[in-house]
Amino acid sequence: MHPALESLKARFAEIDDLRQAGSVLHWDMSTYMPRDGATARGRMIATVEKVAHEKLTDPAVAALLETASGIPDATLTADDRAFLRLAQRQFTRASKIPSAFKAEFLQHMAASYDIWVHARKSNDFNAVAPFLQKTVIYSRAISDFFNAGETAWDHPMDPHIEDADPGMTTASLKTLFADLRRELVPLVRELSSREKPRTDFLSRTYPKSRQMEFLNWLAKQIGYDFNRGRQDLTHHPFMTKLGAGDVRITTRIDETNLCDGLFSTIHESGHAFYELGLSPHLDGTILGHGISAGIHESQSRLWENLVGRSREFWTYFYPHLQAHFAETLQDVSLDEFYRGINRVEPSLIRTEADEVTYNLHVMIRFDIEAQLLDGSLAVKDLPSAWNDRYEADLGMRPPSDTQGCLQDVHWYYGSVGGMFQGYTIGNLFSAQCYDGALKAHPEIPQAMTQGDFSTLHTWLKENIHQHGSSLFPQELIQRVTGQDLSSQPFLAYLKRKYL
Amino acid sequence: MHPALESLKARFAEIDDLRQAGSVLHWDMSTYMPRDGATARGRMIATVEKVAHEKLTDPAVAALLETASGIPDATLTADDRAFLRLAQRQFTRASKIPSAFKAEFLQHMAASYDIWVHARKSNDFNAVAPFLQKTVIYSRAISDFFNAGETAWDHPMDPHIEDADPGMTTASLKTLFADLRRELVPLVRELSSREKPRTDFLSRTYPKSRQMEFLNWLAKQIGYDFNRGRQDLTHHPFMTKLGAGDVRITTRIDETNLCDGLFSTIHESGHAFYELGLSPHLDGTILGHGISAGIHESQSRLWENLVGRSREFWTYFYPHLQAHFAETLQDVSLDEFYRGINRVEPSLIRTEADEVTYNLHVMIRFDIEAQLLDGSLAVKDLPSAWNDRYEADLGMRPPSDTQGCLQDVHWYYGSVGGMFQGYTIGNLFSAQCYDGALKAHPEIPQAMTQGDFSTLHTWLKENIHQHGSSLFPQELIQRVTGQDLSSQPFLAYLKRKYL
Repeated sequence: MHPALESLKARFAEIDDLRQAGSVLHWDMSTYMPRDGATARGRMIATVEKVAHEKLTDPAVAALLETASGIPDATLTADDRAFLRLAQRQFTRASKIPSAFKAEFLQHMAASYDIWVHARKSNDFNAVAPFLQKTVIYSRAISDFFNAGETAWDHPMDPHIEDADPGMTTASLKTLFADLRRELVPLVRELSSREKPRTDFLSRTYPKSRQMEFLNWLAKQIGYDFNRGRQDLTHHPFMTKLGAGDVRITTRIDETNLCDGLFSTIHESGHAFYELGLSPHLDGTILGHGISAGIHESQSRLWENLVGRSREFWTYFYPHLQAHFAETLQDVSLDEFYRGINRVEPSLIRTEADEVTYNLHVMIRFDIEAQLLDGSLAVKDLPSAWNDRYEADLGMRPPSDTQGCLQDVHWYYGSVGGMFQGYTIGNLFSAQCYDGALKAHPEIPQAMTQGDFSTLHTWLKENIHQHGSSLFPQELIQRVTGQDLSSQPFLAYLKRKYL
Repeated sequence: MHPALESLKARFAEIDDLRQAGSVLHWDMSTYMPRDGATARGRMIATVEKVAHEKLTDPAVAALLETASGIPDATLTADDRAFLRLAQRQFTRASKIPSAFKAEFLQHMAASYDIWVHARKSNDFNAVAPFLQKTVIYSRAISDFFNAGETAWDHPMDPHIEDADPGMTTASLKTLFADLRRELVPLVRELSSREKPRTDFLSRTYPKSRQMEFLNWLAKQIGYDFNRGRQDLTHHPFMTKLGAGDVRITTRIDETNLCDGLFSTIHESGHAFYELGLSPHLDGTILGHGISAGIHESQSRLWENLVGRSREFWTYFYPHLQAHFAETLQDVSLDEFYRGINRVEPSLIRTEADEVTYNLHVMIRFDIEAQLLDGSLAVKDLPSAWNDRYEADLGMRPPSDTQGCLQDVHWYYGSVGGMFQGYTIGNLFSAQCYDGALKAHPEIPQAMTQGDFSTLHTWLKENIHQHGSSLFPQELIQRVTGQDLSSQPFLAYLKRKYL
């Protein structure tokens, strides 16, 4: 191997180790850390991030990349080329942001988060508004760092989107989302006017430990390997990769909301399958991770909705669930259960939305963050802009900011811009992806009624998971579907299922 | 503050953060990591250690220390002076060992550990002997790195001892241990010839979860604050500091060995009290840690033995224990329990030894590692040398190496040299320390019968804990006792209690 390439690989392997060490610190913080550990933990996380950033933006890396760019292409393997492309991308992007700025922004984010926690509780947008104002300024400064040379942009949100979902832009997503919205708004209206299925049984009492038993069993049945991961309880469910053989999920259990645990377990398992399905030869390299927010979300949503809310899925699992909660579910048939978990209804909270209305929530946020960033919406006008859009798109006006623009943590612990598009990209691609799997293996739904997911796993692994970050989102989407990202397969799926 | 001092403080704070991040990685590895996480975890730990070592041995640190050494003493606070002394010590010692050597040794240690795990199980010393041989060579090489200038030594074990127990040497400890052994061997012989108390009830069945409930309650009662820590199960109990507000302990539960859980919980709580009792202004600095292996062990052994095996302690706790295991302990009186947990009997396994025979186990290891290191004992002769010493000192010959020289992990996952003296230093100082506390507050034992440990905690905090690493062991011992480390108070305690 060329010495510059070898040095770069060693350097980026260290960076990857440090990032994963940071993930262990985060996982522990969310699960088992005692109350008074927070101060030191914040410091440790900041230091590990800082060190990884120093290693990445070191001038020595620039020199090595420059040397490596002169290696004749023919002498490189496909993996080498993918590695060099990603290493160059990470170096370029990290180098745009001065370390001191980054540290200052991280500090601001922590302060903003603390204020938001209280502001949300007490419905006090004014308390957090000055912090959000500052976040907008920081986010805009980040945009400006990128507005030159090969990373110059058309809209200030572009570099934020590029970060999470490489290859996408504000303009391309606006077009895509407009297509989707055009059909979605009338579809929601149509479905909302129908008679509602019963859902009373979903809010009966399901004891915590009984739920956890079922959720662990369920994760295992759908293919989650507990030798390579574990499931714990957290306030917000998440998946985190702490190594190729250590991909953990967390779930949330509400004793009077059966869906919360069930669908967060399936959702996070979907994320985990992606990370667990990578080619082993990418282990420990920067290629050994899912490629983008949107593609990751496509895997979790495929499992959560296209699989996990299908009739075939529950044909197998409902008898088990019913037996597990024998006294609570004895009066509920499979059909009632299936229709209950698929009830469509406009609501105010994104994370509780059904799969039909969900993208409307996302698009509202996407449009608003673009406006905040380009200056066409002032922070002080956010609550009314938010509420107006909910009224227009979902026919409901939030009675409070707690149920409105204060509900999501993203803008209060992160940048404004690039935070939400991944959810809808994920939903759209999940349908394209599942279409591809069904086309190759039409027997997948039938196998599911027997609790057999092996063909689906194999297809996803071969077509999506194994590539890790070797293919960028659009390359991957093209390869899987022969097309670009599109809203039509997703809309077709919804119509098939609901109309 | 002088800019060099400020820079040094910032640098060492980062190093401290990285070390604590490494401790989180270790804690998780021992508690909750899934089976297949080991490979990546080993890499992550090695990288975090390497980065911390790079930060410590950076030439910039040498330059800053040089500059700081010119700051007029009168302008420094006591903390600044303590910080500069410790920073200089850590820099000097770390700089002696080349990074490449360190990495190679770490790799060898990991391989040696794996072999040892199997060798111990299958009583196969020959399998691990070549690895131990190599460890001796590495350990001797480390000694040689230090054998010049201000760190030149008389015995090759000196720099290893200096590392764990600053200020101690092979020669000084040999003298101290000889004093101890002279009285201990006949004392053990005397006590062994007496009638044995009943201990049958200690190996009855105590269900795991019932034990854990009691152990958590017990830790809390003796003053362990669960807002600043937690207790989990591991194969080997330990205490680890993950921040000033996050000092965790682990315990081991054997369903048919009641003592295992009880005394490991009390022991590890003792370690935790030390770390939790540090002055808050040392938080996040390299001074914010216990000073040495021996002083740390003095705190754990003080709680485990002088407190935790005292009649006063169980006067309060035994009724609670008896009530908790009502059916199992109903036929056992407080007196029988007290005498059972204090039974003195020569045995083969160090970690299961009573407080009287324990130090004999340590001194055997201390002498042997000195001989391995100075070449007067060959690795191939280790088993027979070990067995001969057990026969001479404890009157028992190990029937296998599993119960002999393969029992402790230390030499198979670490260096040979400096590994064991801390246990006996700890036992000796625990008695000096407790004498000091009782002299100041003779009411401590009486308060214990009421479950009140507050005076003892306050005394330990003021006299030992608060100083962290500001005082070196001999300074601390002098300050607390007005004397040097001595075996007499410990021997007097044993005689008082057992004769």
